[in-house]
Amino acid sequence: MEKVINRQWRLVNHPIGLVNESDFEWIEEEVEYKLQEGEILVRNLYLSIDPANRSWIAASSKSHYTEPVKLGEIMRGITIGRILESKNSKFDQGEYVMGLTGWQDYTLSNGSGLTNISLLPKPEGVSLTIYLSVFGMIGLTAYFGLLEIGKPKEGETLVVSAAAGAVGSLVGQIGQIKGCRVIGIAGTDEKCQWITKELGFDEAINYKTENVRKRLEELCPNGIDIYFDNVGGEILDAALANIAVFGRIPVCGMISKYIQTELQAGPKYIVNINSRRVRMQGFIISDYLDRKVEGILELMTWYNEGKIKYREHIVEGIENAPLALNMLFDGSNKGKLICKIANESI
Amino acid sequence: MEKVINRQWRLVNHPIGLVNESDFEWIEEEVEYKLQEGEILVRNLYLSIDPANRSWIAASSKSHYTEPVKLGEIMRGITIGRILESKNSKFDQGEYVMGLTGWQDYTLSNGSGLTNISLLPKPEGVSLTIYLSVFGMIGLTAYFGLLEIGKPKEGETLVVSAAAGAVGSLVGQIGQIKGCRVIGIAGTDEKCQWITKELGFDEAINYKTENVRKRLEELCPNGIDIYFDNVGGEILDAALANIAVFGRIPVCGMISKYIQTELQAGPKYIVNINSRRVRMQGFIISDYLDRKVEGILELMTWYNEGKIKYREHIVEGIENAPLALNMLFDGSNKGKLICKIANESI
Repeated sequence: MEKVINRQWRLVNHPIGLVNESDFEWIEEEVEYKLQEGEILVRNLYLSIDPANRSWIAASSKSHYTEPVKLGEIMRGITIGRILESKNSKFDQGEYVMGLTGWQDYTLSNGSGLTNISLLPKPEGVSLTIYLSVFGMIGLTAYFGLLEIGKPKEGETLVVSAAAGAVGSLVGQIGQIKGCRVIGIAGTDEKCQWITKELGFDEAINYKTENVRKRLEELCPNGIDIYFDNVGGEILDAALANIAVFGRIPVCGMISKYIQTELQAGPKYIVNINSRRVRMQGFIISDYLDRKVEGILELMTWYNEGKIKYREHIVEGIENAPLALNMLFDGSNKGKLICKIANESI
Repeated sequence: MEKVINRQWRLVNHPIGLVNESDFEWIEEEVEYKLQEGEILVRNLYLSIDPANRSWIAASSKSHYTEPVKLGEIMRGITIGRILESKNSKFDQGEYVMGLTGWQDYTLSNGSGLTNISLLPKPEGVSLTIYLSVFGMIGLTAYFGLLEIGKPKEGETLVVSAAAGAVGSLVGQIGQIKGCRVIGIAGTDEKCQWITKELGFDEAINYKTENVRKRLEELCPNGIDIYFDNVGGEILDAALANIAVFGRIPVCGMISKYIQTELQAGPKYIVNINSRRVRMQGFIISDYLDRKVEGILELMTWYNEGKIKYREHIVEGIENAPLALNMLFDGSNKGKLICKIANESI
């Protein structure tokens, strides 16, 4: 292949609080890729922007569930890309792959950890991004977190925070499929309307304008059977205040904590874990990847039956990736946040 | 039977904070018991004083796992008593029973909920109180809480708070039987010495004189696999700060919370439940009572093999029961707290 310009973001500072563009270095490098046997060259097209990205760049700590991105390294991120060249029998030129190829235009890879999504079924007339928004880590997180840890039963009350977000909106819909009454907590009236009117949630609470603890008390007179936590902080406390006996709390994330500069006080109502025999359990999706086929296939079935809807928020240009990450923390994205690096037809 | 004086404590106020004697009314009543068919008359001998007693007399709230004691009612408590008369074919005069007969000298009962402990094996040369201290609710709480929720594996690190207390001391010993390295947290040097020298715990931390979080960090460089929580509050926070990936936290009690007059801030390190995929789960022993025979038999086996030791703190006289309850909150009891109502031979 002839020479190309590879644009990339490298981490140069472990941020505290919100991300600054200066925490990353923008590099434009002229490269002439020469493939070794077994390698593929990927043109990255779409970059998934997720709360976990922020965790990956925090300074090293025992709490890291994965090795943090080191200073000087290319920023880690899940992408979808098109194979430009292949010397690997598992991948053909023109096929699409998904995996951790990073915040850059081109990735030379031996294929390890990459999923060949051209081999998977895809519904007609939708963008490849559906693998980032539903049929990938996001969908599996909602699926296994709710079903394996939440263990929903018909007629139970499910409350989910960040309910208009990528994971939360799927959790609520899967909860409905399982026969739960679903209440979503979100940060704007528009999001509350989307989850109730478009997704069919039973109720929505706007945490910026309503008293969440009191609203949950009104809406859940018999308590919350499952609280799917994406945010931690005060909303977790409000849910704990209203948790039912034998309630379950899958802890998917605590986004309110990721940008704090120091640890804040925890939930007062943690006492209810004791008296109400609650199970609160953290998880990450990597723990369930041996069962990913099962999860993806069921999500595809539900999607094809019209039971799952999603929306995407596309930010144009990899140059905007660092600031796009902050949108997750001020809630300004509407739907699964994706950064578009290049056109699919490139 | 001829007339007797029945002394009893009745609840007259739901305490906030520590218990005052004035929260109870002392009654001496002359009674001539006449048994109906199916009834037994029990002379109560020993009264178990437990942290749960304090929960039972808090003002009504959704968090009650059982109906609170109502004002004017006899104070609820687990006792061991001797049957003075029986018109119930399941019980004979002279047999001993254990159950919720309350803070009083005599109880007329239809036998429901009472265990006939004369039918159970008992080791030679020990007081009947062993059924309160080991072969009853206390032992079952330690047994099922640790084994079913903590799920100890050989070589794991187990930390237990209130480690010299009735439940905590058994939890640590069962942990050792299961091959765990055991660290106990207690409130006096004497207690710390008792659990290490007499019970064989690997380490002890005096939370009144040491920095628990830092000591746990030193003692558990690979993290705490199981933290058995009896106390909540700052010690829970210190354990969460040092919890291992896939750590488990059986929540048996949060005694530091029972006498607070208002809810305090929760643990800062709750964020680790998320990133370290921790399972924190409250339980009460009533949830396992269908398996009580299995638990008691294994505890008896271990006791007979010399693997389980216990100690008791006997307070003389039912008149001292209300103030004895406070000993659990200032930690002045040494071992299972029991109030002696009358001599076994009565």
